[in-house]
Amino acid sequence: MSDSLLNVVADGSSAHLSSFRTRAAELDAADPLAHVRERFLLPTGVIYLDGNSLGALPAAVPEALNDAVHRQWGTDLIRSWNANGWWEAPARIGDSIGAIVGAAPGQVVCGDSTSVQIFNAITSALRMRPGRTVVLADPDSFPTDLYLADSVANLLGAEVRRVPVADVAGVLRAEGDAVAVIAYNHVDYRSGELRDMRGLTAAAHDAGALAMWDLCHSAGAFPVDLDANAVDLAVGCGYKYLSGGPGAPAFVYVAERHLADFAPALTGWHGHANPFGMEAGYTPAPGIERARIGTPPLLSMLALEAALGAYEGVDMRAVRAKGLALTDLFIECVHALGLETLTPAEHARRGSQVAVRHLDPHAVMAALIDRGVIGDVRPPDVLRFGFNPLYIGYADVVEAARLLGDILETKAYEDARYAVRATVT
Amino acid sequence: MSDSLLNVVADGSSAHLSSFRTRAAELDAADPLAHVRERFLLPTGVIYLDGNSLGALPAAVPEALNDAVHRQWGTDLIRSWNANGWWEAPARIGDSIGAIVGAAPGQVVCGDSTSVQIFNAITSALRMRPGRTVVLADPDSFPTDLYLADSVANLLGAEVRRVPVADVAGVLRAEGDAVAVIAYNHVDYRSGELRDMRGLTAAAHDAGALAMWDLCHSAGAFPVDLDANAVDLAVGCGYKYLSGGPGAPAFVYVAERHLADFAPALTGWHGHANPFGMEAGYTPAPGIERARIGTPPLLSMLALEAALGAYEGVDMRAVRAKGLALTDLFIECVHALGLETLTPAEHARRGSQVAVRHLDPHAVMAALIDRGVIGDVRPPDVLRFGFNPLYIGYADVVEAARLLGDILETKAYEDARYAVRATVT
Repeated sequence: MSDSLLNVVADGSSAHLSSFRTRAAELDAADPLAHVRERFLLPTGVIYLDGNSLGALPAAVPEALNDAVHRQWGTDLIRSWNANGWWEAPARIGDSIGAIVGAAPGQVVCGDSTSVQIFNAITSALRMRPGRTVVLADPDSFPTDLYLADSVANLLGAEVRRVPVADVAGVLRAEGDAVAVIAYNHVDYRSGELRDMRGLTAAAHDAGALAMWDLCHSAGAFPVDLDANAVDLAVGCGYKYLSGGPGAPAFVYVAERHLADFAPALTGWHGHANPFGMEAGYTPAPGIERARIGTPPLLSMLALEAALGAYEGVDMRAVRAKGLALTDLFIECVHALGLETLTPAEHARRGSQVAVRHLDPHAVMAALIDRGVIGDVRPPDVLRFGFNPLYIGYADVVEAARLLGDILETKAYEDARYAVRATVT
Repeated sequence: MSDSLLNVVADGSSAHLSSFRTRAAELDAADPLAHVRERFLLPTGVIYLDGNSLGALPAAVPEALNDAVHRQWGTDLIRSWNANGWWEAPARIGDSIGAIVGAAPGQVVCGDSTSVQIFNAITSALRMRPGRTVVLADPDSFPTDLYLADSVANLLGAEVRRVPVADVAGVLRAEGDAVAVIAYNHVDYRSGELRDMRGLTAAAHDAGALAMWDLCHSAGAFPVDLDANAVDLAVGCGYKYLSGGPGAPAFVYVAERHLADFAPALTGWHGHANPFGMEAGYTPAPGIERARIGTPPLLSMLALEAALGAYEGVDMRAVRAKGLALTDLFIECVHALGLETLTPAEHARRGSQVAVRHLDPHAVMAALIDRGVIGDVRPPDVLRFGFNPLYIGYADVVEAARLLGDILETKAYEDARYAVRATVT
């Protein structure tokens, strides 16, 4: 943050933002998703712009968990596997997630962590393209994707090539016959840049390769259209926009045309064709059930299922429209404060978050959190703000920007209280 | 079940069991663990002998989950990673489990499913013994252990040899220099047979191999003494005797002397030495944290942590003494009913469960569950009864046997209502 930028803040922020406030009130009044906010229990005095890291608590969750604990676990006990549908939960919840990310039933299961699902999906992708030994991976990826791609490559004698997203199509054209799979993040976790899922998937297919997408920062935030985009494999997380709770189980998508060939490394008994036969050898289940691994964490999983109810009757196109309008408004506000954003201005290249550049992001965010605006930080210089259209309104956006402007204008963030704090994605 | 056995039941069950009832009352009155039962919320009218499959609900769990949901998730939101110790939960809860299974702090982390942990542990074991390519695996193992050993072997070019536990020492003496790891179940999930952890681990070490134990049916049921038995690696489950809730996270133990060499395949970012550095390459954390994978399912994990509080002040030797006394009593009762048991009579070879042989186990168990006694079935001919000394009393044992005797005597289990039902381990 240069002094000149701070001067802009000091000179003009209040005047600019008061006009934004009027516009926000109009947008909130006309918001077709305004009623969905009541499906979440948001603490008073907080503007929560970190739902891209941990979604807010859906109102249906506490009662669902209470039922899961007292009636299902405490009273029905082991019988719940049959009586309360525990056995079917991974595929049932998978289908609910599928409906949100544009996957027809029978192609998604819920369970495990994103890291585990990435490992399984990349292993299987390499097995599904025998003779091809290259994985093209996103150098800007959230690091766990790269760590797991490297680990799979080490096990299978493959090679991970870190190719910037802009160069993928070229590499596929030039050397695509060696590529088994391209593994990219749908939305860049740091900048909020949305990638061209349809175009890159088609480029992979043209080269005979598969496309595996990490949906952590898109699932639940806008339509993903996995089936329509001809995606092969995808993984995603349950605790960001889907608001399934801390560490909520992840999910994996396997396009129906690949189900018979999907061959994950983690051959746990829940993925067996005859799980109760207690057979000595592994035979994968015929459908998406083969992507199951071990016994899933049901309390976390049933919380996620209840959370997904917040999408009932919600048109994902309306979620997208609002997400763009919220981020448009926020970008305009922070530009008016003289700040630089790293998130693409172009709608087709923007997810549902905004990255604001500041050279002392930890201190600024700590000061902002103290004032009730919660976002997070991505080192070295990113203030990250996520906008979940299900519970964030336009007035929230302007108020968050106003408080940010105040902190910068008064240099409140230089207070010793705001020494570095760690935050978690 | 032959007719002659049924005749024995018809002839003598009531008289025999009334004397057992008197003895049970005396044992309950003198039980030093009787007060621990109050730490569990057991439904009225139920004798729960399936705590070896899904532990009963600990009384502390609902309030802990309520706090996790409303205060930690709902109110503190993302800040809980720091403010409420979410980041430290896997190692903190790992240490609590470690105290129960005889592991000094810093050697256990909690997370993921048993299946995932087995995969990671066997992969690492093979890497820790380069040049050795054989895994000796338990042919009587719960099948998921074998499926995952086979998968790891396929990835690493190793060989899984299914060697009955009685033959392991001989194979190690004869051909042990090819063996990287022996992977056995501490207690046979079907028969309840307890294996000689100390002796087999020593035999593995004599051959230069590692010993990896699956503790699913021993952790929480009696002292396991991992450190004292010089075990190298172990995995176990949180939802059986530990009563952590349906699908509660599993755990992995890595002996301190191996921590620097532990090299799991699932290199998720939570196991990174600098997880918030967002580095492009994976560097494992120096200690047990390297066994972490992705973001853990915190609601399930915090329920498990609350459940472990039931062990506070409980001497695991007292748990063992009571477990043997409960299973002794049950074995005597069912023998008096003329039934055959598959569980070793010898204390040193018995876990905390009893397998009763019956040729129509599903129907018998269904009839028994109808009468409030919950156990489970392992095909083709096992009625399985688990005895968690923390909440099962001696009178429960005799009453369960009495109801079993009644069902067999009256052939109530032949009723059409008791057609086959699936149950889950």
